[in-house]
Amino acid sequence: MASETISAQAMNGGDGQFSYARNSEFQGRGVETAKGLINQAISEELDIKQVISSSKIFVVADLGCSVGPNTFYAVQNIIDSVKLKCSEKELEFQVYFNDLVSNDFNTLFRSLPSDRQYYASGAPGSFHKRLFPKASLHFVHSSYGLQLLSSTPEELTDKNSPAYNKGRIYYGRSRNEVVAAYSGEFSKETESFLDARAQEIVSGGLMALIVPCLPDGLPPGECAVVAYADLLGDCLMDMAKLGLLDEAQVDSFNLPSYFPIRQELKTLLKRNPYFTIERFEPLALSAQRELAINIPTVVSHLRAVLEGLVKKHFGNDIIEDLFFRFSNKIEESSMCSPSSIYKPPVENVIVLKRTSI
Amino acid sequence: MASETISAQAMNGGDGQFSYARNSEFQGRGVETAKGLINQAISEELDIKQVISSSKIFVVADLGCSVGPNTFYAVQNIIDSVKLKCSEKELEFQVYFNDLVSNDFNTLFRSLPSDRQYYASGAPGSFHKRLFPKASLHFVHSSYGLQLLSSTPEELTDKNSPAYNKGRIYYGRSRNEVVAAYSGEFSKETESFLDARAQEIVSGGLMALIVPCLPDGLPPGECAVVAYADLLGDCLMDMAKLGLLDEAQVDSFNLPSYFPIRQELKTLLKRNPYFTIERFEPLALSAQRELAINIPTVVSHLRAVLEGLVKKHFGNDIIEDLFFRFSNKIEESSMCSPSSIYKPPVENVIVLKRTSI
Repeated sequence: MASETISAQAMNGGDGQFSYARNSEFQGRGVETAKGLINQAISEELDIKQVISSSKIFVVADLGCSVGPNTFYAVQNIIDSVKLKCSEKELEFQVYFNDLVSNDFNTLFRSLPSDRQYYASGAPGSFHKRLFPKASLHFVHSSYGLQLLSSTPEELTDKNSPAYNKGRIYYGRSRNEVVAAYSGEFSKETESFLDARAQEIVSGGLMALIVPCLPDGLPPGECAVVAYADLLGDCLMDMAKLGLLDEAQVDSFNLPSYFPIRQELKTLLKRNPYFTIERFEPLALSAQRELAINIPTVVSHLRAVLEGLVKKHFGNDIIEDLFFRFSNKIEESSMCSPSSIYKPPVENVIVLKRTSI
Repeated sequence: MASETISAQAMNGGDGQFSYARNSEFQGRGVETAKGLINQAISEELDIKQVISSSKIFVVADLGCSVGPNTFYAVQNIIDSVKLKCSEKELEFQVYFNDLVSNDFNTLFRSLPSDRQYYASGAPGSFHKRLFPKASLHFVHSSYGLQLLSSTPEELTDKNSPAYNKGRIYYGRSRNEVVAAYSGEFSKETESFLDARAQEIVSGGLMALIVPCLPDGLPPGECAVVAYADLLGDCLMDMAKLGLLDEAQVDSFNLPSYFPIRQELKTLLKRNPYFTIERFEPLALSAQRELAINIPTVVSHLRAVLEGLVKKHFGNDIIEDLFFRFSNKIEESSMCSPSSIYKPPVENVIVLKRTSI
C-alpha cells in the first residue's frame, strides 16, 4: 500500500443541526475571552499611523474564519479597538474572511452583519500559502486555525515506517514516532504560515493567534480532544470488525491536526526572524470545562469539525451510525463526567508584531 | 394592493444543466469580442506607474461576475495586457470577484483557475453601492451587469399609476409610461453605480463596461431579449388563466432589467464629472445571431438568468412547466427563425477613465 495523506477539509457549512455556525460555542468562548488581551495589544503595540502610512485604509484578515458567527465578533472587536485608538476620522476598514475553498462562503456572506462598518471580502485558499499581495495587511487574526494541518504526514500510512499508525486515526495512544511525525508536520506548516504572513503583513502590523495547546506536562492521550478523536477511531475500528467498512480504510485515515506543547510553539515562533512575540498568554476558560460535560454538545461540536473529513474518506453512508456509536462510546468511557481525568487543551493568545527587517 | 418592487437575484449557481456556468456562451462571446478593444485601451490610456504610485499591487475588480467561466477570461485578459505594458517585474495582481450575496460564490471559488497569477477574493454585495475602500481599485470590469437593476420601479405595480404594468412582466408591449419608469430607474441606478466607482477607483484608473443596448431606432418590443421576456410573461398569464397561479402574482412581478438606448447611456456617462469616456463602441456579434436561432439554447440561457427571480416570486413548483411552455411559445412565435424581425441587443464596449478632480 502506498502511503497516503489526508487533506484538510472545511468545517460543516450551512446552518443545520451539525453546522459549525451552530456548533462553535467552545471556540466562541475562546474568542470572547481573548478580546481583552487583543484590545490591550492594539492599544499598546500598534502604531496605526506607521502601519497605514499615507493611505486611509486599515486592512484586517481573519484566517480560517469558517462560516461565523465567531469571526464577525473577532473582527468587530479589532475594528472597535483600532477606532478607539485612532483619531483619523476618514479611516476605512477592509476585512478579508479566509478559509479553505471547501468552506461554505455562501453561508458566510449571507451571515455578514448588515450594520458592519467595513468592506467585506472572502479570500479562499489554504493559509499555509500566500493569500494576499506583499505588505497589504495591517492586522491578521486567526483563532483555532493553526492546530489544523493542511495534510497528515505520509509516514502515518507507510507500513514500513515506525510511525505507521495502524488501527488508529489520531495520536493519543500511539507510539512516540507517530506523535513525532505529527509534531514535525505541525512545525513545517507553522513555518509556512509564518513565512507567508511575513510577506503579507506590513512592518509594524500585528497578528493575533488563538492556538489550543496541550496542557504542560500532560500526556497527549489525557488531553480531552485528543482522547475523543481516539475514541472516534475506536468506533471506526468497531465498524470495521462488523464488516461495515474496510479496516484498511481506517489504517489510511488520520486526522490532520495537532495540539502542540506550549514550548514547542514558542520555539517555532521565536525562530522566525520576521516577527517578535508581544504576548503569549494562556486563557483561563472555565466555560470549556462546563460545556465539556454535556455529551451531545461535545459530539455536535466535534461533528461540525470532523464530519467533512470523515465523509470525504469513508463516504456519506456511515456518518449517522458512526456519530451515534461515538456518543455511546463517550458515555461508556465516562470521559465526560465531572471527575474525568481528561483535560481540555489550553488556549494561548499570541500576539506577534511584524518586524522592520 | 400596495405597490411592490422585485429585487435583483443572482444568476443560477452550481454547474447543472441550467447553471449560468453552462449557459453563458452569449455573454462569453461578448467578453471575447471585447478583448481587443480593452487591450488597446490599456495600452493607450493606462499610466500604470501613475495609478499604482509607490505600491507594487495592481488591483482589478470584476463587478457582477456570476460564477464563471467568463469572469476568469476577462480578468486574465486585463492582467495579460497590464503585464505586457508594464516592465515592473515585482508587480502583484489582486482580483476581486463581485456579485450579489445570493450569487454562488462556492462554485465560483472552486472554479478559480489553478494556475492563476493573482490573489483572488470574492466581494459580495450590490454594485450599486460602495463595495471597496476609497481609491483602492486600478481597473474595474463589468460585463452584462449594468442592464440589471437592483429593483423594479414601484409605479409598475401601482394600480393608480399610468405606469401600472398589469398582466405583463416586461416592457416590450407596454405603454410608454412603463418604459419611462424603467428608464428612470436605470438612470438612477447607473448614477449610483458611477458615484460608487468614482470613489473606489484611483485617479487615472480605468473601467471597462460591456452594456447591451437597444439597437438604434428599434422599438423595445422588437428587441429579441425584450420580446422573449414578454413571451415569458404571456406563459405566466396562460398559467394564471388555467388556475395554476394567481393573476395578481403576475401583476406584481416585473423583471428588474432595462436595455438602454445607446444615446441614453452616453448621456448618463457624460453627466458624471469623475469619468471621461475613452471608448464607446458597438460590438459586431454575429455569433449571437447564430446562437439565437437555436430554441433550447435561447431557453436555457434565459433560464440561467431568470430562474432565480421567478422562483423567488412564484415558488419552485411552476418552474419546469413554465419553461416548457416558454419553449413552445417561442416555437409558435417563430421568433427564433432565421428570418425573424427581432434583433438582438447591441453590446457596447465602454472604457471610462477616472479623472483627477
